[in-house]
Amino acid sequence: MKIIRDDNFFMNLAINIAKRKKGMTGVNPSVGCVVVSKNKTIISTGNTGSNGSPHAEIKALNGIQIEAGSTLYTTLEPCFHSGKNPPCVDEIIKSGIKRVVVASLDKNPLVNGKGIKKLKNSGIIVLQGVLIKKTEDLYGEFFNRVTYGIPGINIKIASSADGKTALKNGKSKWITNKLSRNYGHKLRLCNDGIMVGINTILKDNPSLTCRLPGLTKFSPSRFVMDTNLKIPVNSKIINTAKKNETIIFTSKYSSKRKVRILKNKGVQVIRIPKTKKGLSLNSALKFLGKKEYNSLLIEGGNKLIASAINSSHLNKIFWFSSEKIIGEEGKPSVGKLNIANLDNSPNLILQNMINLDNNYLKVYGVRK
Amino acid sequence: MKIIRDDNFFMNLAINIAKRKKGMTGVNPSVGCVVVSKNKTIISTGNTGSNGSPHAEIKALNGIQIEAGSTLYTTLEPCFHSGKNPPCVDEIIKSGIKRVVVASLDKNPLVNGKGIKKLKNSGIIVLQGVLIKKTEDLYGEFFNRVTYGIPGINIKIASSADGKTALKNGKSKWITNKLSRNYGHKLRLCNDGIMVGINTILKDNPSLTCRLPGLTKFSPSRFVMDTNLKIPVNSKIINTAKKNETIIFTSKYSSKRKVRILKNKGVQVIRIPKTKKGLSLNSALKFLGKKEYNSLLIEGGNKLIASAINSSHLNKIFWFSSEKIIGEEGKPSVGKLNIANLDNSPNLILQNMINLDNNYLKVYGVRK
Repeated sequence: MKIIRDDNFFMNLAINIAKRKKGMTGVNPSVGCVVVSKNKTIISTGNTGSNGSPHAEIKALNGIQIEAGSTLYTTLEPCFHSGKNPPCVDEIIKSGIKRVVVASLDKNPLVNGKGIKKLKNSGIIVLQGVLIKKTEDLYGEFFNRVTYGIPGINIKIASSADGKTALKNGKSKWITNKLSRNYGHKLRLCNDGIMVGINTILKDNPSLTCRLPGLTKFSPSRFVMDTNLKIPVNSKIINTAKKNETIIFTSKYSSKRKVRILKNKGVQVIRIPKTKKGLSLNSALKFLGKKEYNSLLIEGGNKLIASAINSSHLNKIFWFSSEKIIGEEGKPSVGKLNIANLDNSPNLILQNMINLDNNYLKVYGVRK
Repeated sequence: MKIIRDDNFFMNLAINIAKRKKGMTGVNPSVGCVVVSKNKTIISTGNTGSNGSPHAEIKALNGIQIEAGSTLYTTLEPCFHSGKNPPCVDEIIKSGIKRVVVASLDKNPLVNGKGIKKLKNSGIIVLQGVLIKKTEDLYGEFFNRVTYGIPGINIKIASSADGKTALKNGKSKWITNKLSRNYGHKLRLCNDGIMVGINTILKDNPSLTCRLPGLTKFSPSRFVMDTNLKIPVNSKIINTAKKNETIIFTSKYSSKRKVRILKNKGVQVIRIPKTKKGLSLNSALKFLGKKEYNSLLIEGGNKLIASAINSSHLNKIFWFSSEKIIGEEGKPSVGKLNIANLDNSPNLILQNMINLDNNYLKVYGVRK
């Protein structure tokens, strides 16, 4: 097989580099960068540092000599503004590179085309849009946050073949197999935060951490929707709140005394409005958007999942299904959606199916 | 790529030949046969004739000259007994062929090793068991019928991503896409009979035929479980009963007058025992086994599907899922199974997953 070393080839490499660090780059998106010489040899690569610094371009350019005819590939438009990091645009210009290939514009209003403009103004040839579908997918949650101020929502469901998440008696260990559950931990790694409803805490007492070896430090922050502040003060997430950020959303009517106890244990308690259907998911999302969470993984229960499916901020659904069949009396994976017509069903698209031994994972995206 | 023309290669070809006619060979199983010369050239092929005659081996041997060193490959042990067809074993011996490769023994007690024994006794070298896993899969329903006197059961389910087959208001057109529905018609082609519960008739008034162009004549016989003989006399399957065999199973208490009306329309009405859960599926299956139906496709409703899942005669489940999500209030695809422990969930194995545009098909087999 002849490998064609064109712009697509190198951009694909940059995207794969970016993907590997998804969820480990703090509030910054995970970027991949590749520098290639005139004769198509890879000179260097860079990815975004853990928790966001340094930027991928800076790492790729660090300590290399740029020959004439070299190209820099980057998955996201180089930054223009000085934040925690120096503007990458200036470093690229300084490096002497004369051609830059970019996949996505950075929809962050602080950048959004300004980086590319400055590169062009300094005589650099810029090609934008290469493999952009892949990067729009990769940065779906980040773009949602910088555009709407609200994190992109991912949903994780683990169900039987017939879509049930537990037996009638509540038993759910283990509907899916170990391979599925490990993949579930990867999802926790790739998301900035994880949200569950209070019933999930009461039923399972989960720790909601990423337990993949070596990656526990990238466990997501944990958020619980708990209208009446029923959370047991000795539940696992409360006991580990000083180590892993933990936020409980509750209504204004909840016990002040319990709020104090929880705060003493390191938990943030945030009072948000209540609607007929329970706590306002949108209010919680706005709060998290302000705190610059890009992505949120919702793991249940089924009412919260139904709200998330109906949200305009839904990014993807990761649906693990096993070969087990539970039957009508099992617990449904999705709560009430009140759909009167099939055309009003959420507009999803099956993006991927992954065989996980006797289980499988479907990945649904949202048709825009 | 170098193609290795060994026994596996030619047997695989024979199996593919057999698969193509599944459902079109009447009470006989669909067999594939390939005759190969000493230098590995294919001399001829044969498949079972429509409705069962002639047999594949007879067709393959017809009009060819057997050179020394030739091999005959057949997916199923050649028949030994004279039925509608002359015994293939005798024809093979007469042909002068000296080597025969067989995948599965014919579990039909009339054959079951006797065919191979006779071949061996006449000096033919016989190799048995080549690619047997594939033929055990292909003949699963037939082997069930000749072993237990009961057809092998296949189940077809078409559901939303969350396992619902209709909205709360009963609407189900169309949960799955056209590609899925066409594949569903292929399933009707491949099965000898199709069974539904009376509620499916009352709700959808289906014709239960195979509507693939050119293949309608291979539509399966139609069976309805109808405890109280509620079937409308003007329903589609009743109106076409003189063209396509139609059997209604009912209890002994049903109206004799209605039975007469139905019989006049060409319908067979069979009274079978009733259990607490409704009509006895096993009684219906025994009746159909006696009539030499090898395979039965159950399409719904969810109570009948639940009974079939619990049956020891379950062969496969073909589960089409769409990208639509209906939510908790939708109709479940499987009725009550009364599982108290996940280990008691039906022992299925995911054999195949097929992407059908935005839908997909899972094929589950039974772990033996």
